[in-house]
Amino acid sequence: MYRHVPINKVEIQDDFFQPRILQSRESTIPYMWDTLHDRVPGVAPSHCIENFRIAAGLQDGAFHGWWFQDSDLWKWLEGVGYALSLKRDAALEAQADSAIDLAEQAQQPDGYLDTYYIINGLDKRFTNLKDNHELYVAGHMFEAACAYYAATGKNKVLDISCRFADCLCENFGPEAEKLHGYPGHEEVEMGLTRLYAVTGEKRYLDLALYFLNERGKQPYYFDEEVIRRGEKVEEMRRDFWQTYGYYQADVPVREQTVARGHAVRQLYLLAGMVEAGAAAGDESLVEAAERVYENIVHKQMYITGGVGSTHVGEAFSFDYDLPPDRCYTETCASIALIMTAIRLHRAHPHGKYGDIVEKALYNGILSGVSLDGKKYFYMNPLETWPQRCETRNDMHIDDERKGWFGCACCPPNVLRTLTGLSMYLYTENDEYLYVDQYVSSDVEAGDTKLQVESSFPWKGEVKITVEKAGSKKLALRIPGWAKKYVFAINGEEMDHDVWNGYEFAGQVQDGDVITLSFPMEVKKMRSHAHIPEYAGKVALMMGPVVYCLEEKENGDELWNLSLTDAPLTTLWQKELLGGVMTIRGEGVREKGTDTLYTDEEKATENQTLTFVPYYAWGNRGKGEMRVWVRKA
Amino acid sequence: MYRHVPINKVEIQDDFFQPRILQSRESTIPYMWDTLHDRVPGVAPSHCIENFRIAAGLQDGAFHGWWFQDSDLWKWLEGVGYALSLKRDAALEAQADSAIDLAEQAQQPDGYLDTYYIINGLDKRFTNLKDNHELYVAGHMFEAACAYYAATGKNKVLDISCRFADCLCENFGPEAEKLHGYPGHEEVEMGLTRLYAVTGEKRYLDLALYFLNERGKQPYYFDEEVIRRGEKVEEMRRDFWQTYGYYQADVPVREQTVARGHAVRQLYLLAGMVEAGAAAGDESLVEAAERVYENIVHKQMYITGGVGSTHVGEAFSFDYDLPPDRCYTETCASIALIMTAIRLHRAHPHGKYGDIVEKALYNGILSGVSLDGKKYFYMNPLETWPQRCETRNDMHIDDERKGWFGCACCPPNVLRTLTGLSMYLYTENDEYLYVDQYVSSDVEAGDTKLQVESSFPWKGEVKITVEKAGSKKLALRIPGWAKKYVFAINGEEMDHDVWNGYEFAGQVQDGDVITLSFPMEVKKMRSHAHIPEYAGKVALMMGPVVYCLEEKENGDELWNLSLTDAPLTTLWQKELLGGVMTIRGEGVREKGTDTLYTDEEKATENQTLTFVPYYAWGNRGKGEMRVWVRKA
Repeated sequence: MYRHVPINKVEIQDDFFQPRILQSRESTIPYMWDTLHDRVPGVAPSHCIENFRIAAGLQDGAFHGWWFQDSDLWKWLEGVGYALSLKRDAALEAQADSAIDLAEQAQQPDGYLDTYYIINGLDKRFTNLKDNHELYVAGHMFEAACAYYAATGKNKVLDISCRFADCLCENFGPEAEKLHGYPGHEEVEMGLTRLYAVTGEKRYLDLALYFLNERGKQPYYFDEEVIRRGEKVEEMRRDFWQTYGYYQADVPVREQTVARGHAVRQLYLLAGMVEAGAAAGDESLVEAAERVYENIVHKQMYITGGVGSTHVGEAFSFDYDLPPDRCYTETCASIALIMTAIRLHRAHPHGKYGDIVEKALYNGILSGVSLDGKKYFYMNPLETWPQRCETRNDMHIDDERKGWFGCACCPPNVLRTLTGLSMYLYTENDEYLYVDQYVSSDVEAGDTKLQVESSFPWKGEVKITVEKAGSKKLALRIPGWAKKYVFAINGEEMDHDVWNGYEFAGQVQDGDVITLSFPMEVKKMRSHAHIPEYAGKVALMMGPVVYCLEEKENGDELWNLSLTDAPLTTLWQKELLGGVMTIRGEGVREKGTDTLYTDEEKATENQTLTFVPYYAWGNRGKGEMRVWVRKA
Repeated sequence: MYRHVPINKVEIQDDFFQPRILQSRESTIPYMWDTLHDRVPGVAPSHCIENFRIAAGLQDGAFHGWWFQDSDLWKWLEGVGYALSLKRDAALEAQADSAIDLAEQAQQPDGYLDTYYIINGLDKRFTNLKDNHELYVAGHMFEAACAYYAATGKNKVLDISCRFADCLCENFGPEAEKLHGYPGHEEVEMGLTRLYAVTGEKRYLDLALYFLNERGKQPYYFDEEVIRRGEKVEEMRRDFWQTYGYYQADVPVREQTVARGHAVRQLYLLAGMVEAGAAAGDESLVEAAERVYENIVHKQMYITGGVGSTHVGEAFSFDYDLPPDRCYTETCASIALIMTAIRLHRAHPHGKYGDIVEKALYNGILSGVSLDGKKYFYMNPLETWPQRCETRNDMHIDDERKGWFGCACCPPNVLRTLTGLSMYLYTENDEYLYVDQYVSSDVEAGDTKLQVESSFPWKGEVKITVEKAGSKKLALRIPGWAKKYVFAINGEEMDHDVWNGYEFAGQVQDGDVITLSFPMEVKKMRSHAHIPEYAGKVALMMGPVVYCLEEKENGDELWNLSLTDAPLTTLWQKELLGGVMTIRGEGVREKGTDTLYTDEEKATENQTLTFVPYYAWGNRGKGEMRVWVRKA
């Protein structure tokens, strides 16, 4: 079994990612702390800390916000934990500790801790697992606790979590007197497994497996709890949201083959299946997750690594249904995709997982946050027409990032991904060290120590200096997009010998220098023939980075532009969008008449098209954007 | 002021339309009669006649169906009226008379007649004009009464209508003690004006004008009635449906410039404005309607004559927002479009109105009914992918026509359009007879009598034999698509001299033969540059007929097909789809790989594309369809 190299053993110095990590630490963490305390002007109050204070008996009042509002604190704390693993910070720890103290005060004698039910009536707890997210909140608590404990060695929040986990073990399980349910929104499976990994308490892993194995059993638990609440099953099931495919609970998880329903739930389920399955040595869970994951990346994923193509239920649709302008492609869903991919990689290392991690990181996840780190997209469309986004009443697409959301899942998810980025870079076991992503950093894995210098994503040069060879063999990922590359050790070019997506450098010596040179050439990507919207079109990529046209450089009515076969050129623009490589190509603009429909030929004129990285779109005011461009 | 030639003075013999009119008379009328009586197996009960029986005290029970369920009877009766104008039918009249007798029994002493409120409590009548459609139902009653009276001379339903209209006059108007409201769904304005035209009772016209002039005045009547009902204005206004633009009631009608809100309501309003405005000599109403109508036909209309591009609210969206696969384009809305166009034509004759009538008739209206006359589309998309229609949960598009609808507005609307078709063919005043559409028929307008023989829409030859010259001068519409044509009288070619879209033949003699020869050539249509979906694409038209690709002839993944510049050919296929001219062109099919995204060039292969008329699509089982095709 493989694991990531501990966060505090990876020191990132990357030109591309390090400023973003610093931004998260120095700007996002304090900003979110203020939002949790309802003191950011112009942002609707979160009520998150207030709810904890009320639950702790420190103030009067009613619960406000979503029933899963607590999770905002836990996700913040998880991000903080990773940030503190990178660099301790007494003031930040004091803030975190104060929140943990507050949570402890709110915790019930039996360990229960969810402010929604503490405030609204504990008699109703565990009566609506389908909708009310108690177990989801618990999962985020457990993940936060493990991250914070790993960073600080302080065990208070870990103890709080164990008490709540014990409470869950008391209430759920196969025994007749316990509840035989499972969460409507998955997450607790990962949290419990992680808590097991830290504490060694096997009952936590067993409960995670129990939750996984109960899904889809008949009679459906969600029906049973509805009946117990005195409500009608038929009424509850009327909506799309109430079909059990939406919850990945219509059939047992090992029988599921295609991604369905709420995208984040689907992917948290898969990540939980892999994590718990691998921990328990239950390969059947890993295999089942792999099957659904393969369906996603081969048939239900946007070229940006975005997933979830419909806003109704924030959900997967069906194979090849990937419209660019009406996708949901929630930032959180792309994050959940790489959470699944990296866990599959740790179960069975393969470069194909790193390809997806890389794709989502450089595109569909980063697009979720503005360059200044202050605004967020919930949805990440591949094509926008602002007037349509704002006026047409069936779109559900934002054309500008927003400061915060009532349902604030994406911002803290980006935070924990960036502060915890190193977990996606290196994978180790006792024998091997996998270099999964080329992000400049010093890494220490056991007795092996490397300095990785990378010019990604703008150039393909990678230099790995072996500071201590140690006992591990090195494996170096060859990205799927790199069909040609040069691999050399100490200047000596090596034959290509890729196995499962990696070059294996074998046993290296102290002071060895490994170089990889990947061709960062612009490629015109085409889509599978079964996607209507991309027929006759191309999308430009350079290495892992997907490009787009924006109105700023190219004028409006981007749909009238098409790209000729003329050679494409690249240009490094240091001042643009935080420093980006732009791509230029010769294009044609179809000109119109002012008649609605006419049999006159449309005139055309030549126009140079300028493409910018997709992740950077929407940072210069409102305007049209599109990734897929017609071929002239 | 112009009028249509009375229905019983036009005898249609047209190869294209006459079978459809006969089908309506012989099949649709009895079928609908049976649905109104809840005796069609497999069709959900309408309860329409049952509601009337309950309201009349003939049986016990509760009201069922929509609150505007009565209108199904009235729309049926209007269609029956036109059918009887074409040909009397004692058995059909007996059915109609029995329904009229039943309605009379249900009518209240003060003339009120709406079974929803008679059954549910008359104290609540006129308390929710915004939503509950009483005035809409009344309008359809009045139109039916006028049609039935014109056909049969029987005045019972006319008397019923006058009594209800008198009741409305008692309850609505400028006087302080009356209600100062107006309907949430327009229609009564047309009905009242027509009742005025038949009876000469000016108070009906005055009430129509009152309803029109009250719209948009502040404080809003819809707010006032909400307050009177003890409900909250803010709650009522939460939804899109509750913004007053949806009801065309946010500003006074003369200040409205752009089509908004529910498409049928918008167009019934325009038709009512023109009809009442022209009857009252109030040109400002006609001009205001013309302004909004021009916005529609120049900026918000599909090439098929479909209107209303969003299913949310069955509504207009914004200028140039005309996606082909998510349009609502309700059959009723296209019918309402030609109702408006023909009234504008009667106010100020111009060939541009006939162009729209022709476009909608041959395309977006006829597509609403199957070739066998038994199934209907509510929505008329320009592009379908059955799997997406059925699976993707934000589509709201049917991929097959249905036998009937719970909200059964479209089928009887098609019925009354087809049986009343002649109202769209000829326009007269004392001096002129306008031939607006070339549909083979004998027409007698005053002392002028013509025989029109037309080969439309497959060929462009028209022969008009003047059987009696009479006193009228002839005006012959030159369709907007006919840029070249030959116009001859008695074989002598005339110079072209088109004024307002018409050739004026001047004073003709008995026995004169006028011929018009229009080139029915296939045209590749392009769209305005501001419509994203049609960039780089063409739609084929031949004369007024829009064509489409169907999966049946062209295979699936129609999106992979593009059309080359090679010449197009036509072929008459007598056995296909009831006899159609098909179009063939040389195309290219883009072939795919089984990779989701790849930088490999896509292979292509040549393929002959076969286009069929759009109105005939979806008559051969499920399959893809698309109107706009990429240019190779």
